[in-house]
Amino acid sequence: LIGLDWGTSSVRAMLVGAEGRVLAEKAQPWGITRLPEGGFPAAFAALAGEWRSALPGLPCLACGMVGSRQGWVEAPYCEAPAGADAIAAMLAEVPGAGLRIVPGVVQRGDRPDVMRGEETQVVGALGDAARGLAVLPGTHSKWVRVEAGRIAGFRTFMTGEVFATLRGHTILGAFAPETAAEDAAFARGVLAAHQSDEGLAGLLFSARALVLTDRLEPGGAIAFLSGLLIGDEIRTASTAFAEAGVVPVLIGEAALCDRYRLAFDLCGIAARVAPPGAAAAGLWRIARHAGLIAGGSV
Amino acid sequence: LIGLDWGTSSVRAMLVGAEGRVLAEKAQPWGITRLPEGGFPAAFAALAGEWRSALPGLPCLACGMVGSRQGWVEAPYCEAPAGADAIAAMLAEVPGAGLRIVPGVVQRGDRPDVMRGEETQVVGALGDAARGLAVLPGTHSKWVRVEAGRIAGFRTFMTGEVFATLRGHTILGAFAPETAAEDAAFARGVLAAHQSDEGLAGLLFSARALVLTDRLEPGGAIAFLSGLLIGDEIRTASTAFAEAGVVPVLIGEAALCDRYRLAFDLCGIAARVAPPGAAAAGLWRIARHAGLIAGGSV
Repeated sequence: LIGLDWGTSSVRAMLVGAEGRVLAEKAQPWGITRLPEGGFPAAFAALAGEWRSALPGLPCLACGMVGSRQGWVEAPYCEAPAGADAIAAMLAEVPGAGLRIVPGVVQRGDRPDVMRGEETQVVGALGDAARGLAVLPGTHSKWVRVEAGRIAGFRTFMTGEVFATLRGHTILGAFAPETAAEDAAFARGVLAAHQSDEGLAGLLFSARALVLTDRLEPGGAIAFLSGLLIGDEIRTASTAFAEAGVVPVLIGEAALCDRYRLAFDLCGIAARVAPPGAAAAGLWRIARHAGLIAGGSV
Repeated sequence: LIGLDWGTSSVRAMLVGAEGRVLAEKAQPWGITRLPEGGFPAAFAALAGEWRSALPGLPCLACGMVGSRQGWVEAPYCEAPAGADAIAAMLAEVPGAGLRIVPGVVQRGDRPDVMRGEETQVVGALGDAARGLAVLPGTHSKWVRVEAGRIAGFRTFMTGEVFATLRGHTILGAFAPETAAEDAAFARGVLAAHQSDEGLAGLLFSARALVLTDRLEPGGAIAFLSGLLIGDEIRTASTAFAEAGVVPVLIGEAALCDRYRLAFDLCGIAARVAPPGAAAAGLWRIARHAGLIAGGSV
């Protein structure tokens, strides 16, 4: 299988072997908003062309924003609760390209939400588990509850985007750059938010006030801010998502997952980090369900 | 009295008569970060020179960021609890300029906070009241509790700055401009945040998800976002600041105060809007306490 994890700002192509193992990998900054000349077809050819010539007949499957309305071909959302089988039944075909695209998942009702790409990582990281809780930190963090082996409910937190925006465009970012005090300040921020039921808008100013009153090193203010946001996410998400006996599984970039695991620890919650390769494993499982590849267990 | 309300982005000079009535007024965009050529002395001369020549001997008193470390002369903070008398005892003099500056107020302890300028508005709007709650909406909203006629405790919410930043620099601002659906969407946002104990980072994404699932008009998304932020501020601040029998008094720009009063209404709290002139009244009261002017009741 040739798998692509094609997001807003970058794309990763993977040659995927049995059980979802990654045999080779290429990455480009060709997210759907910054394609090279020639657009999607040219990017796809540059990424997968060589593998396709060498191994003719390999199925190609992509997940992520490439299936959004702004993507190559829109893959309409699969409705939650959604298992790998339901997702696999709704692949969208890119006409003439030899590529299929995994749909995102939509949650309807009073608290609607959407995902594109994360469903594949959850399917890959949680495998056959009947119950689970996946946490995918990032620009838009997702908390995803799995029940009866299906994505049952989820919620998006704009933690990463809010952090980057506040750091870049408010008085909170006017502090000195990070220093050695970083880790302690991060922990302080996590605990301040986790132990308080104050709103974020009030907590945020405390970062500045603590510095002005000499209770926080200016160099630690950014880490404190990061801690506040992650602590607030864990506090509020846990209320809705935590379940006795279910260990949250962190999926994503290693350094960010480690930061979240530390924050979970500080909040008294044991979380584990999923091994790398969740997207590849998810694409492989979905391709199996869709009958694109044979052999091995689903 | 010649009074100046001198902030970060603008300055207002007022000729203040008995009981704090504003007899004449001049405004310039000469906040402390954007002074005209000649700096503070030139700005002060351009604003107050004519009045000072016509009415020699009039005392001059300024409040706001002009007294910060980045201002003309630093006026060290007065410690809360702080009444008009304690504030008046700590005026800073600008050498040779014939101008005094009102100090800000600092709250120490585990939840430190600071204000500069708002203390004067609170003194002006609440007058002799022994107990009260002032809410000053804006870039950095302040909730200020008055006990025994003094500023006893307060908290800053970065509501306005967070709103402007999110609208300008995140996917939430990518929606269509405001439309007629605005007021209903604002109310929906207020209620969504007030009735939920979810964190802001989760609520924020709901603005986007509601649009994507056709449950919110794209044109109402910005008003919904504004409602979410103000509703979250009222929910979390009320927990700490609401007291039975104390009516919150809104101080500030009329349109913004009206928006907050509507939000308070939606949250089941009756608030009233202070008449204009809070800064002038506060400067007059502080000048009386400092013995700069005589006559009339303090």
